[in-house]
Amino acid sequence: MGDRVEPIFRPKSIAVIGASRTKGKVGYAIMRNLIVNEFQGKLFPVNPNADSVWGVKAYPSVLDVPDPVDLAIVAIPADAALEAVEQCARKGVRGLVVITAGFREIGGVGEAREARLRELVRTRKMVLVGPNCMGVINTAADVQMDATFAPTPPLRGHISFLSQSGALGVAILDHAKNLKLGFAKFASLGNKADVSGNDLLESWEDDPETKVILMYLENFGNPKNFVRIARRVTKKKPVIAVKAGRTEAGGRATVSHTGSLGGSDVAAEAAFTQTGVLRANSIEELFDYAMAFARQPLPRGKRVAIVTDAGGPAIMCTDFLIENGMEMATLSEATTASMRAWAPPEASLRNPIDLIASAGPEEYRKTVEAVLKDENVDAAIVIYVPPIVTEEVNVARAIVGAAKGSKKTVMCNFLGRSEESPGFVELVTNSIPSYLFPESAARTLAAMHRHKEYLERDEGRFPTFDVDRATAKGIVDATKEAGRTRLPEADAMNLLRAYGLRVAETRACRDVDEALTAAKGIGFPVVLKAVGPGLVHKSDLGAVALDLGEEAEVRSSAAKIAKRLEKAKATWDGFLVQEYVRGGRETILGMSRDKVFGPLLAFGIGGIYVEYLRDVAFGLAPITDEDAKRMIESIRTYPLLAGVRGEKASDVAALRDALLRLSQLSHDLEDIREIDLNPMIVMERGKGCKIVDARIIL
Amino acid sequence: MGDRVEPIFRPKSIAVIGASRTKGKVGYAIMRNLIVNEFQGKLFPVNPNADSVWGVKAYPSVLDVPDPVDLAIVAIPADAALEAVEQCARKGVRGLVVITAGFREIGGVGEAREARLRELVRTRKMVLVGPNCMGVINTAADVQMDATFAPTPPLRGHISFLSQSGALGVAILDHAKNLKLGFAKFASLGNKADVSGNDLLESWEDDPETKVILMYLENFGNPKNFVRIARRVTKKKPVIAVKAGRTEAGGRATVSHTGSLGGSDVAAEAAFTQTGVLRANSIEELFDYAMAFARQPLPRGKRVAIVTDAGGPAIMCTDFLIENGMEMATLSEATTASMRAWAPPEASLRNPIDLIASAGPEEYRKTVEAVLKDENVDAAIVIYVPPIVTEEVNVARAIVGAAKGSKKTVMCNFLGRSEESPGFVELVTNSIPSYLFPESAARTLAAMHRHKEYLERDEGRFPTFDVDRATAKGIVDATKEAGRTRLPEADAMNLLRAYGLRVAETRACRDVDEALTAAKGIGFPVVLKAVGPGLVHKSDLGAVALDLGEEAEVRSSAAKIAKRLEKAKATWDGFLVQEYVRGGRETILGMSRDKVFGPLLAFGIGGIYVEYLRDVAFGLAPITDEDAKRMIESIRTYPLLAGVRGEKASDVAALRDALLRLSQLSHDLEDIREIDLNPMIVMERGKGCKIVDARIIL
Repeated sequence: MGDRVEPIFRPKSIAVIGASRTKGKVGYAIMRNLIVNEFQGKLFPVNPNADSVWGVKAYPSVLDVPDPVDLAIVAIPADAALEAVEQCARKGVRGLVVITAGFREIGGVGEAREARLRELVRTRKMVLVGPNCMGVINTAADVQMDATFAPTPPLRGHISFLSQSGALGVAILDHAKNLKLGFAKFASLGNKADVSGNDLLESWEDDPETKVILMYLENFGNPKNFVRIARRVTKKKPVIAVKAGRTEAGGRATVSHTGSLGGSDVAAEAAFTQTGVLRANSIEELFDYAMAFARQPLPRGKRVAIVTDAGGPAIMCTDFLIENGMEMATLSEATTASMRAWAPPEASLRNPIDLIASAGPEEYRKTVEAVLKDENVDAAIVIYVPPIVTEEVNVARAIVGAAKGSKKTVMCNFLGRSEESPGFVELVTNSIPSYLFPESAARTLAAMHRHKEYLERDEGRFPTFDVDRATAKGIVDATKEAGRTRLPEADAMNLLRAYGLRVAETRACRDVDEALTAAKGIGFPVVLKAVGPGLVHKSDLGAVALDLGEEAEVRSSAAKIAKRLEKAKATWDGFLVQEYVRGGRETILGMSRDKVFGPLLAFGIGGIYVEYLRDVAFGLAPITDEDAKRMIESIRTYPLLAGVRGEKASDVAALRDALLRLSQLSHDLEDIREIDLNPMIVMERGKGCKIVDARIIL
Repeated sequence: MGDRVEPIFRPKSIAVIGASRTKGKVGYAIMRNLIVNEFQGKLFPVNPNADSVWGVKAYPSVLDVPDPVDLAIVAIPADAALEAVEQCARKGVRGLVVITAGFREIGGVGEAREARLRELVRTRKMVLVGPNCMGVINTAADVQMDATFAPTPPLRGHISFLSQSGALGVAILDHAKNLKLGFAKFASLGNKADVSGNDLLESWEDDPETKVILMYLENFGNPKNFVRIARRVTKKKPVIAVKAGRTEAGGRATVSHTGSLGGSDVAAEAAFTQTGVLRANSIEELFDYAMAFARQPLPRGKRVAIVTDAGGPAIMCTDFLIENGMEMATLSEATTASMRAWAPPEASLRNPIDLIASAGPEEYRKTVEAVLKDENVDAAIVIYVPPIVTEEVNVARAIVGAAKGSKKTVMCNFLGRSEESPGFVELVTNSIPSYLFPESAARTLAAMHRHKEYLERDEGRFPTFDVDRATAKGIVDATKEAGRTRLPEADAMNLLRAYGLRVAETRACRDVDEALTAAKGIGFPVVLKAVGPGLVHKSDLGAVALDLGEEAEVRSSAAKIAKRLEKAKATWDGFLVQEYVRGGRETILGMSRDKVFGPLLAFGIGGIYVEYLRDVAFGLAPITDEDAKRMIESIRTYPLLAGVRGEKASDVAALRDALLRLSQLSHDLEDIREIDLNPMIVMERGKGCKIVDARIIL
C-alpha cells in the first residue's frame, strides 16, 4: 500500500509558510534549523512581507513558488492557516506539517477549525502532521531535514521517536544528545488530526534506518489498529513506550466485582503485554532502554556476570537483577582458573567478580574477555568506581576492546560518571551503554531479556468456537426491548450456555411448586434463590439457601425466604433453582468494555480476599489461546491451580477454554457492557469448570 | 558520656604515617588532600626515608614528632602497621584511621592481625576507624580535614555520610559535588574493627553541623543498638539509608509457614520502618532524597500543586505522586482567579497548572507565588521544559524569587537539564532541589512527607504483661532435657497460655478413654488429633477429626485415625483433644529469630492463599503497642478485619494484645528459635482470638 507518510519525511522541496526574519519567532527557528542542518532539497520561504529569509528568496504565497513543493510547514496564526492549506492543495503539495496552535485543543472555534482542516486534507488527498505540533525530523544523509523549532538538532542514529507531547519530545531529543543517542526520525504528533502514531509505526516497521522505536503516549487514537500493528512491528524491532496517565483510572479502580476491575490504564497495560511493546515506567527508563536496545544485542539468556572494582555497587546491581527476574551466572572452572593466574589474592573471583580498587585497564580487559568467553554467561555488566579520574578513559577503552567481537550483551556502570566524563563518552561512542547507577544497568538488561523472551514466545492462534450466536443475540435483544440493562439470571445463564460456557444448571420458577419440579429435574442437592430486578444483595437479605438435599428442605427454605423478603419489604419475581456445585476452587471471570480499548477480559482467583489482594490478570479481546494461557499462569496463586503440596491440580484447560469463549462472546455481542462470572468453580483436572453466578449488564 | 569519635573528627594535629613523595601512592594523595584543603591544625608526615613531604618536615617515626599528636592516619603495608600503631599508643595518640588493607577481609593471617589491632586499641584506649578504609573528612571551617585519598574534596554543607564501602563512598562524594551537595562529615568505615555506624550516628545526633545523615550499609554490626539509637536520632534529623543485599535472603524466603517468613532483609526493612530510617532503594534515590532533605522544609501535608509549561511531564509527575500516596491540591477560587487575570486563554489553571510553552520567567514567578500562598497547597513541584535554552536561568531565578520566604516545600524538574545547566545551578545554589525527571521529584516529595508523618506519629509504649515466665521456662527446659527441638503440641499450648495468650483448650491423652474424659471436660464440639514427634503432616495422613459433637463421634473417629495411621505405618504417642473453635477469621502469628536482628515477629491473614499473596507484616521484638497497631493495620486485607460491607469487625484489640505478648515471650525466652501460630482465629469485636495450632521450635 506504499508509505502514507513519505511526503512528510522525504520531501525534495519544502515551503516554510510563515518563514520569518525575526529572531524568536517560530518561523525563524524552523528556517534556521532547515538551513543549518543542511536540508538536501530546496527551501522556499513564504512570507508576503519579506523579500528573503536567511538569504533565501521568499515568496508572497505558496502559489507563487516556481517549482513543485512536496511539503509545506505551516507556522502562521490559526485564522490564516486554513487559507494557506487551501493554497497548498491547489499547488499540489502532498505533505503538511501544521505547527500552528489554536485548533481542537482550545475547544469551540478551534474545533470547527480543525474539522475544516481535516476535511480539506481528506478531500485533497494530502497528508498532515499536527496541528499544534513541534515539527518533524529525518536525519537520513540524503534528506537531513530538521523541520522543528527545537534548539538543538539530534545526532544521526537508529532510533525513531514519536511524541504526543511536543515540548517533552524536544526535551528528550535535547537530553539524548548529551547521552550521544542518535535518531533516524522524529515526529511531534500534536492533535493528530490526520497522521497518527499507528501510521508512523507502520511506516517505521520497514524503515531500514529505524532499529528502535520510542513512543511517548498520552492516549490511543485507534487502539484496535494499534494492537494489530504493534503485534507485527514488535517482532521486527523493539518498540518502547512511555504512557502517561497511569493513575488516572488506576487510582479509582476497585475490584469489588470484575466489571470494575478494569480501567483505561489496565487496558493499556494489557495492550502492551499482548503486543510486546516494552513499557518504560518513567522518562528515565525510556532513555535507559533506548541506550541499550540501540547499541547492544539482546542477551541470549538470563545468566549475568558482574565485573567490578568495588563490592557495594555490585551488590546493588545483583539485587536489581534478581528482583527483575535475571540470574547470576555460575562461572566455569576454566574462567576462574584463568583469572586466578594474575588476579590479586584479595580479589573475589566468584560472580560478582570483585577485582578490588587497584584494578586498572589490563585487569578489566582480561576479566571482561574471560567472562564473555564463558559458556555459562549470557551477558555482562561491568562496574567501575573510578578512584582516580585519569584511569577512567583507559578502563573504558579496555572494556570496549574486550567486548569487541563478542555477541553477548555488555553494559557498564561507571558510578557517578555523567555524560561529560571521558569514560562515558568513550563507552557510548563505541556502542557500550553506560549508566550512572548500577540499578539502571540491571533494570535495562532485564528489559532486554524480557524482549528476547517475547520474540521467542508463541503468539498462539485465535480459535473460533462453533456457538449459537443467534440465541445469545436474541436474549440480549429481548432484554433491551424489555427496557432492562441487566439480564435476568436465568437468561444470563442461557446466554453463556449458548457460547458453550458451562454453567450450573439453573431454572427460573414462579412459585414453590415449580421450584420443586425444577429441583427434581436438576437432581438434588440444589440451591434456591429468590430473584427479581430489585434484589441485588441476595445474601444480605437471606434470599439464598444452599445445599438443599431433599424436597422438604426446598419447601421450608422457600417459606423462610418468602417471610424474610416480606419483612424486608423487598419485591421479587420468583425463584431460581440451581444445581449445587460442591468442591472445586472459586475463580472469577469477567469482562468490562473499556471505552477506548473495547472488551477487557479479567481472570482471577475468587473468594473474599481477592478484593484486597488483587490477584487478577487482564487481556484485551480477542485473545489467542496462548494469551489465555499466559493470563491464567500469570496470577500469583496459579501454583494452587496447577496443584501443589497435596492439593489436586485444577482443570486449567477448562479455564482456558472458558476465557477464550468469553473473548469470542465479548467480541460478538457489542451491546454487552459488563460480564461478571463470580464465582466460576473450577474442578480438578479433567472435570471442567462451572459458572455459578452470572451478572451481565448491557 | 562525651563524644567517642571526637579525636577522629576534631584533631588539632595529625601524623600521616606513610606520607609519601611518590605520586600515585595513597600516602601522597592523603598528604595532598590535607594540605590542599587547608587543614587548620598541624601536619606531621612520618616517613623514615624522606626529609620532607609536600614541603613539610618529615619524621622517621611518630615517636620522633616533637609535638603532641591527636590523630594518626596509617597508610603503610599491613605487616608494619601494627608496629606503627603500637608507637602511636606510646606517643599518646588518641585517634587512629587505618587505611591499610590486609586485615580481616583477607581471612587467615589478616584476621589474627585485626584481632591484635583491636586489642591494642582497646587496651590503650584509642579510637579507630578502619582498617581497610578510605579515610575521613570534616569540612568544618575550624578543622578542614580531608584525610582521604579521594580525587576531589566535597563541598562544605550539612550532610554527614557514613559508608561501609570506601570506593562507593568516594564515588558518591564525587557525584554529589556535581549536584552541589555539601557535606559536614564523611567516614569510610572499612572493617569496623572499632568505630561502628552506631558510634557515628550517636556522634552526629547532636552535631550542629549535621542536618541530614546518609548511610550506605551492607550489614549491621550491633542491630539492637542500631534500633535503639536510630529511633532517637531520626526524631532529631532525617537518616537516609541504602542497604545493599536486598535479595540475598529475600529471594529464598518463602511463606510456607511463619517461621520462614523472615529473612535478613525483611528484618532490616522492619528495623528501618520501626526506627523511622528512610530507606532509599537505589543509589540514585539516595541522592534524590539528600538533595531535598538538606535544602527544603518538610511538606506539612499531602496536597501538591504542579506548575508546568508542558502537559506530558506533569501527567508523569501526577502518576508518581498518586502512586506514592500524595494528593493533588484543589486550588482555591482566589488562586485560580488571580491567574486568570494574566494567563493566556490556552493555559489550564486547574492543578496541574499548565502555563503552555510560551510561559517565561514572569508567568512562573506569579504562578509559583500564587500557589504557595494558597491555603490548600502544602508543596509545589515546578516543571520547566526549556524550549529555548537562554530563558532557563531566568525561569530558575523567578522560581527562586517566588519561593523565597515561603515555608512550603518547593522542588523543580527542569526536564533533561543536567548538573551543568545554568538553570540547575541557579536553583540548587539557592536551596531549590532540581531533578532531571519529573518522577524523581514526585518520589522524593513523597519520601519527605513520609518522614513528616513519622515525626508526628506516636511511638507508643513497651507494655509489660504479668506473665508466668517460670512455667514457660520450665517447659522449654524440659523439652531441651528430653533432647527435643520441637515442643509437643500440648506443651506449646501451655507455654503460650503462661504468657496470657488465649489458646483453644487442649488436652493430651494417651488413649480413647482419656480422650473421652477430656472431651467431656472441655465440652463438645471438639477436635481430635493424633500426635507424636513423627507426625508432621497430620491432615495428609487423616490424623485430624474436626467438629465432633458427641461421645460416639469421638470414639469412632479415634478408631478411624488409629486404622489410618497403622496403615500408613506412622508411629504416634496418643491423642490431643481440643476445643473446636467455630466461626471467626483465620490469622497467622509467628516469630523467627533472625541471626542478626533477633526475634522477628510476623502477622498476617491466614488461609491457603497466603503463601502466594504474602499479606504479612513484620516487626522486630520488642515492639510498642503502636508498632503492633501499625503492623496489623498495614496488611492489605486489614479492611476485612476492620469490618466492611456487612462483614463483622474482628477483635483487632485482641490481635494487638496477642502480638505484644508474643513480643515479650520472644524477648524473654531466647532458646526459642521459631514460633508458628497458624491459625489463630480472631472472633468478632470483643470476643477475643484463639490459637488453634502452635508449632514452637527451639
